[in-house]
Amino acid sequence: MLMSLKEYEASFLEYVNKMLNIEEAIGVLYWDLRTGAPKNSFKQRSNVISQLSADVFKMSISDEMAHYLITMEEAVSAGKCSVEVEKTVNYLRKQYERNTKIPVEEFEAFVKCQAISESVWAEAKEENNFAKFEPYLTEIIGYKRKFVEYLGYTTCKYDTYLDEYEPGMTVQKLDEIFSAVRNKIVPLVKAISTSGKSFEKEEMKSFVSKQKQKEICELFLTTLGYNFDAGRLDPTAHPFATSLNLGDVRVTTKYHENNFEKALFSTIHECGHALYEQNISKDLECLPIAQGASLGIHESQSLLYEKVIGQSYEFWKCNFANLKEQLNGVLDNITLDEFYKVINNSKPSFIRIEADELTYPLHVMIRYEIEKDLLDGKIQVNELPSIWNKKMEEYLGIVPATDREGVLQDVHWSMGHFGYFPTYALGAMYAAQIKATMEKELPNYNELIETNDFQTVLDWLRVNIHQYGATKKPQEILKDVTGEELNVNYYIDYLETKYSSLYELEEVNKSI
Amino acid sequence: MLMSLKEYEASFLEYVNKMLNIEEAIGVLYWDLRTGAPKNSFKQRSNVISQLSADVFKMSISDEMAHYLITMEEAVSAGKCSVEVEKTVNYLRKQYERNTKIPVEEFEAFVKCQAISESVWAEAKEENNFAKFEPYLTEIIGYKRKFVEYLGYTTCKYDTYLDEYEPGMTVQKLDEIFSAVRNKIVPLVKAISTSGKSFEKEEMKSFVSKQKQKEICELFLTTLGYNFDAGRLDPTAHPFATSLNLGDVRVTTKYHENNFEKALFSTIHECGHALYEQNISKDLECLPIAQGASLGIHESQSLLYEKVIGQSYEFWKCNFANLKEQLNGVLDNITLDEFYKVINNSKPSFIRIEADELTYPLHVMIRYEIEKDLLDGKIQVNELPSIWNKKMEEYLGIVPATDREGVLQDVHWSMGHFGYFPTYALGAMYAAQIKATMEKELPNYNELIETNDFQTVLDWLRVNIHQYGATKKPQEILKDVTGEELNVNYYIDYLETKYSSLYELEEVNKSI
Repeated sequence: MLMSLKEYEASFLEYVNKMLNIEEAIGVLYWDLRTGAPKNSFKQRSNVISQLSADVFKMSISDEMAHYLITMEEAVSAGKCSVEVEKTVNYLRKQYERNTKIPVEEFEAFVKCQAISESVWAEAKEENNFAKFEPYLTEIIGYKRKFVEYLGYTTCKYDTYLDEYEPGMTVQKLDEIFSAVRNKIVPLVKAISTSGKSFEKEEMKSFVSKQKQKEICELFLTTLGYNFDAGRLDPTAHPFATSLNLGDVRVTTKYHENNFEKALFSTIHECGHALYEQNISKDLECLPIAQGASLGIHESQSLLYEKVIGQSYEFWKCNFANLKEQLNGVLDNITLDEFYKVINNSKPSFIRIEADELTYPLHVMIRYEIEKDLLDGKIQVNELPSIWNKKMEEYLGIVPATDREGVLQDVHWSMGHFGYFPTYALGAMYAAQIKATMEKELPNYNELIETNDFQTVLDWLRVNIHQYGATKKPQEILKDVTGEELNVNYYIDYLETKYSSLYELEEVNKSI
Repeated sequence: MLMSLKEYEASFLEYVNKMLNIEEAIGVLYWDLRTGAPKNSFKQRSNVISQLSADVFKMSISDEMAHYLITMEEAVSAGKCSVEVEKTVNYLRKQYERNTKIPVEEFEAFVKCQAISESVWAEAKEENNFAKFEPYLTEIIGYKRKFVEYLGYTTCKYDTYLDEYEPGMTVQKLDEIFSAVRNKIVPLVKAISTSGKSFEKEEMKSFVSKQKQKEICELFLTTLGYNFDAGRLDPTAHPFATSLNLGDVRVTTKYHENNFEKALFSTIHECGHALYEQNISKDLECLPIAQGASLGIHESQSLLYEKVIGQSYEFWKCNFANLKEQLNGVLDNITLDEFYKVINNSKPSFIRIEADELTYPLHVMIRYEIEKDLLDGKIQVNELPSIWNKKMEEYLGIVPATDREGVLQDVHWSMGHFGYFPTYALGAMYAAQIKATMEKELPNYNELIETNDFQTVLDWLRVNIHQYGATKKPQEILKDVTGEELNVNYYIDYLETKYSSLYELEEVNKSI
């Protein structure tokens, strides 16, 4: 049977499309589980998810896929494919290699271990009992140490895992970047602590009904350009955004009746993720590259909206009066200046996900350093609580009283997600660099923010970043958009300028 | 390779389980589409549903399935299987025969025609243009006439389709039943019309916020025994209940801000469907027979809760004060007696889904008679509007001014769902017969209703009906529960007693 290249490509794309359709179904099932599926549904629903996930996994490493890849790679080399097809082939090749290098039985054993480990972690955290979690984490790390040998590495084992979340990122680069950030931020955090200033306000803990908070969140989503014809907002336990298809990118939030600020900013954060996915080019529809370039670039968009824009003075100049009105009296005794300060209050704290913009990267660095050493076997699992506390003291000047507030707080390690944490910090750095470019290319940038002209901002991000999906690597995007690869000075400048001014820290200011 | 029967059965059940898992995913996708999936998601989501549906269909007619069925049927004949496995084999055999008898290409053409026909129907209804729909309906009926030849029939073609929704039901039985009902109900409806009485009340159209209506619906769901750990309530356009797995049976409703009554009773209706599925025996979990016995038996449960219980005087004796309080003034000028009358107001109307309990079966009969004649070729599609109006005049004494309010009102025919309508009326008849038995077996039945002791009612229904799922045929259930097959006199008595008393119709009363 002779098939033309066009026909062969169509058959390949149909195969890929079938995989994506199953992934879309899985996406809906997960969204549903996290937004109110009744608890008695979980056990059987997880069977459905396992079955569909196994189906997609098998398709990703099938003989059919192997043949498609070889033939399509030839076509790509001969210059016969569009750039979208080329990138799709590359994406699937990388997935194929990753999924075939680890022996199936070992991978299945790992997946089982992951599930148990995660639930033991939840119990151990609840009970503040690190010893309970220790053997499971040891097993997980055993797998990660073994798998990296299958997957291969050049200079540094950790690079292999880093690359899964942030293609092209390396330990060498990260060590340099984090060191620069640490040197500038640790003194800044100390200076703020020493200043004794706190911007906290009782009013921020006033009761606001969930229904009212929902309305406020919807209002801000609309203001920022979120398209409700291609998404929806729902309550959940741990806020997330999820892209099911290009016409269905959902956001979630959690309402705390005595902390409207949390729901508001977590919604704006997820909005940033969602705007990215809603604005990927329709040319990439039904291809696996119709997603963000990396976790780091994704996080740059969420943090750009949440922190850089959403917690800026300019943003609230335009929106504070409206928020006040919505909140119906709650903020009547707070001025715009006070509000700006309170939402940017910085203070060393134990829990990463509750940390402010300035202290946040220090939380990430602690995890990064521990992960590297664990993988290299330089430290062992039983040492983690003491190492954790030592680093907290060193970076943030505080020591958690319990492991629950310390080494047990995050779910990631229980699932073997090593190399994930750095992307949170990279996102903040990318965001600062992208913002600096926006200010140059949109000379009236501040004015746009002050007048809620978010269509212009979104258009710029769409044209420069969003539309490309995962056709470009993270550093490629950064280079194309900002003219240089990651330059951490933008981030350091951003933080120093903002927080020195907020806390009127003249000495630190001078040192910049 | 030798496999023991135990192993073979396990392999068969695993195969069946895989089909059900995919069906569960499809169920979640449909639920999602109908409860707020963003409109831009539809196009691509329908590809996902098509793919998964095709996968299940293929599994139902695969060579593997054919082998499983033959071997398992031998095992069943040899008395080596549990009753659950036996019923599963029977269920899948019936499905296999139905799915293989129609040539695949013709079936696919029909499915395509269905999709177009449904959307043309929606437009035609909107535009009140029967001529637009006529050629599509003609095509659909062409398929149904052809398919029945493939599927086979003994005396009556319509029996074949009836059996798909209500196993064991026949035209012979229905003709008899419907004729008896018609002879009693038509005079009753006329007597009510002649009496000139109307129980309508302006207050029932007062504004009640959707949020408040939701709270009221949740309250009644809980009162009736709906388990929120195994379900949830959401708004939708056309209310339905859906069983995703035995631990996840969801209900939906529609809130009209100036008609709280609609949402309330549609919720109680769906609650009846959901209670059935929530109380199927866990022994049937992961088997295709873990569902209601038939559409008719399902409808008997929804109507039992909505009409027989939910619109009874006893029910509101206990719940009216509470509803009044919830509605915060809206019903202050209405007494319990008035409320009971207003929710049972009976009046001939054009739209089936808005019809009251008494006139409802007449709407079904009109459709039943037309469907039979269409299938037999006794009437043609172009005659439908005039035939429809003639029958409306004859049965209900009114003639719709437009086809939109007449022959175009229902979606069923556009999708080729012939034989479906009768199950709505059968449900009401089963419900009356079941209620009569409950009154005998629970001597304090009225007291239970008057005191909101729904656990006792639900336990009775669970033990007698729910737990069996689809292991029994509809008439088998009825016989086992009530001691006789469908006896329409219970239904006629129920209606005559209730409505004669409501409208104080002495003459009709005497004639009983």
